[in-house]
Parts: sequence; C-alpha cells; structure tokens
Amino acid sequence: MDRVVNVSLPTVRRLPLYLSVLKKAAERETAYVSSSQLAKVLALEPIQVRKDLAAVGVSGQPRLGFPVRNVVAAIEEFLGWDNVTDAFVVGAGHLGIALAGYSGFQRYGLNVVALFDNDPEKIGRQVHGKEVFPIAKFSNLAGRLHVHIAILTVPEAAAPPVAQLAIDSGIRAIWNFTPAKLSVPAGVIVERVDLAASLAVLSSKLAAQMNRGDGRTDGGAGRQ
Amino acid sequence: MDRVVNVSLPTVRRLPLYLSVLKKAAERETAYVSSSQLAKVLALEPIQVRKDLAAVGVSGQPRLGFPVRNVVAAIEEFLGWDNVTDAFVVGAGHLGIALAGYSGFQRYGLNVVALFDNDPEKIGRQVHGKEVFPIAKFSNLAGRLHVHIAILTVPEAAAPPVAQLAIDSGIRAIWNFTPAKLSVPAGVIVERVDLAASLAVLSSKLAAQMNRGDGRTDGGAGRQ
Repeated sequence: MDRVVNVSLPTVRRLPLYLSVLKKAAERETAYVSSSQLAKVLALEPIQVRKDLAAVGVSGQPRLGFPVRNVVAAIEEFLGWDNVTDAFVVGAGHLGIALAGYSGFQRYGLNVVALFDNDPEKIGRQVHGKEVFPIAKFSNLAGRLHVHIAILTVPEAAAPPVAQLAIDSGIRAIWNFTPAKLSVPAGVIVERVDLAASLAVLSSKLAAQMNRGDGRTDGGAGRQ
Repeated sequence: MDRVVNVSLPTVRRLPLYLSVLKKAAERETAYVSSSQLAKVLALEPIQVRKDLAAVGVSGQPRLGFPVRNVVAAIEEFLGWDNVTDAFVVGAGHLGIALAGYSGFQRYGLNVVALFDNDPEKIGRQVHGKEVFPIAKFSNLAGRLHVHIAILTVPEAAAPPVAQLAIDSGIRAIWNFTPAKLSVPAGVIVERVDLAASLAVLSSKLAAQMNRGDGRTDGGAGRQ
C-alpha cells in the first residue's frame, strides 16, 4: 500500500502546521486537544481537522479529543520526520548556503551533511560547519554516506544534468529549488519549490487591488 | 469585481507555466497553439487548459487554437507582470541576497530596489548593485519610492514586528519567506513560501517508498 496515494497533497502540506501547534501543546503538558480547538488555531473547519488527522491514522476520543503525543508521533512517522535523513545541497551559492544553514530543517528531520559546487573558489570552504566538495565527488560520497536526498540550487541550465548525476548516484528524492522542470525515472521523487507560482498568487492579488484603486478593502487579510 | 475571487489559486499558480511555454512559442514566431499541444507540454488535461485560459479571459478559435501573443498579454496583465513592480527585501542574509540577485524576477515584473537589515556589518554594502539600508530607513524610503511589496527573509521572531513596520509604511503585499504566520489587517496581501509544506510532501513520499523497501517502482515519476 502506498499511503501517499490515499492522502491528499493539501492534507500532507498542512501536517507541519498541526505538528507545530501540537508540539507546543505537548510542551505545555496538554494531554488532549479537540478538533475545534485545532480548527480555530489553524483557521480550518473542524471536519477538515478530523479528516486530516484520520488520514495519518489517528482519531479523537469522545469528550477528550485527540491525544497530543500520539498525534505528534503519528504525523512524524507519516512524514518520516521521526528519524533524521541526510541530504546534500548541490550549488553553494547564496540560496544553497541559506538552506545549508537553516536550523529549522533539523525540526523536520533533515540534516544537510555536505554541499557541492564546481566553482574552485567555493570548493573546500566550510559553510555552517559543512564542507563544499567538487561535484565530481558527488557520486562517491552519496554511496559512501548513504545519502538519498539532493537539494538542487544550481542555475536552471545545470539542473537537468545535475539531477541525472544525482539519480545515477542513488539519490531517491530531489528537492528542486531551480526553475527547471525535471524529467525523472519512475520511483524518483521530485518536489519543486515554485517561486514563480507563489509570486503569481501575490502579484495577481496586488494587481486586482491596484486596478480597483482601493488599498484596504478587499478582505485579503488573514493568517498566512 | 475582484478577479482573484473568481479564479482558483491552482489556476493562478499554473499561469507562470503557460507564460513560459507561450513566450518560447512566440519567440519561434508560432501564431497559434491548441489546447491539446499546451496540455501535452504541461502534463494537464486539454479541458483544464481551456478552463485556465478562459479564467484570464481568452478563448481558442475553432481549428486555429489560442492566439499566442494575446494569451501572453492576457496572462501578464492578469498577474500585473506587464509593468515592473518595485520591491524591498528585508533581511540581507544569504536568502535575502539570493532573492535580490535572482535575475528570473525581472521576467515576473519584480524589481528589487533595495535591501534592509539591522546588522551594522551589512548596512551600506552593495548587493547585486543594490544598497543595504538600516531598517530605520524603511518607512521613509517606502514612501519616497512608492514601493508596495516587501520580501521578508528575517528570522522568525523578527517577522511580526517587521511586517507591522512594513504595513505602517504603506506596503500592500508581503512575500513571506519566514516560518512565521503573520496576522495582517484586511487589504494587506500575504503570500508565504512554505518550505515546511514542500518538504512534507517530499518526506512523506520518500518515507512511503522506504517503508515499502523498494527503490524504483512506485510511479512517482513525472515532470515537476
């Protein structure tokens, strides 16, 4: 059974929000939370909360609600965040360095162990305590260190050959921060951070607001 | 009428893909493309293509298809990408510098005119030809330069007060790269680049694959 097939992507994308709220509740020694409490904090409908949590295999108890620690454990197991996964960053430019140093990733079970680049100026440098290796060493190190995730921050044109090298080296999942659309064989996972799509949402709302000539009346508010 | 209310977010997020494909077609002097040609390139259903393009006000012509230049113009106008919008980057760390130097944004009608930080080491530096100003100058410069977009790359804890300063300074749209959830008044647009959600999708697919113990058979392939 492929669990992912049965759980919608919007649900998966909301799981880190549940995790963040529930971990804080666990720190406050809260044992149970209700779906309506969660719904209020996350600006969702209670029925949506119950469906999302049912998707990872937990259900609420009558009058008590959801057991906080069980839900945290279930979400972390579902996401594979209960054990830390090592990753390589390819491209030691500003974005690669920013990602290599992002402390939040530890919380998400992701550990950047090394960076790669083809710029002799960058090779050998230490970035947040991690070394920048020449791209020629990628394959050897991926095999030796059993790394399965590659984070791509190379220029668009370099992305397809680098992705191919990564796949040939045993990488199973590519987190693609480049604008390139990657064609990968079956079984290799690609998740793209699509800045153009995000900017499109922002721009279209701003354009609509500017066209109306009003600044502050379109109900675009909310927690995001 | 608020156009955005009538156009679904998934459609808006796909518009940059259409734009990219259609601009390349226009460079090749292609006058018309069919919905099935677009559907094939973008891995969508033809009916989806027709709905998406109808949402920005263009329809195909019998036997000819969609007029390429008209569709490009309609999408650019819808997104407000037909005229360049100035933006400030707040937070001149690696992510802020990466975004300030991202040449792709020009294509999306976004022009970073300055960066802001509160680190004396960074203030006064030139980053990709743009100056880093002290955050205390934000309000004055936003007013003088009529800047309406702020790109936030500050630490999580700094995000709410910086967002408030930006809003008080006349910023109408915040592109939020921080993990913070921002509460903003009605009429202010916030679009968050949610790295945790993106990583959740990647992680859950990888965890499912690893749990099944197979490497290459789950049909996770595709263009992304």
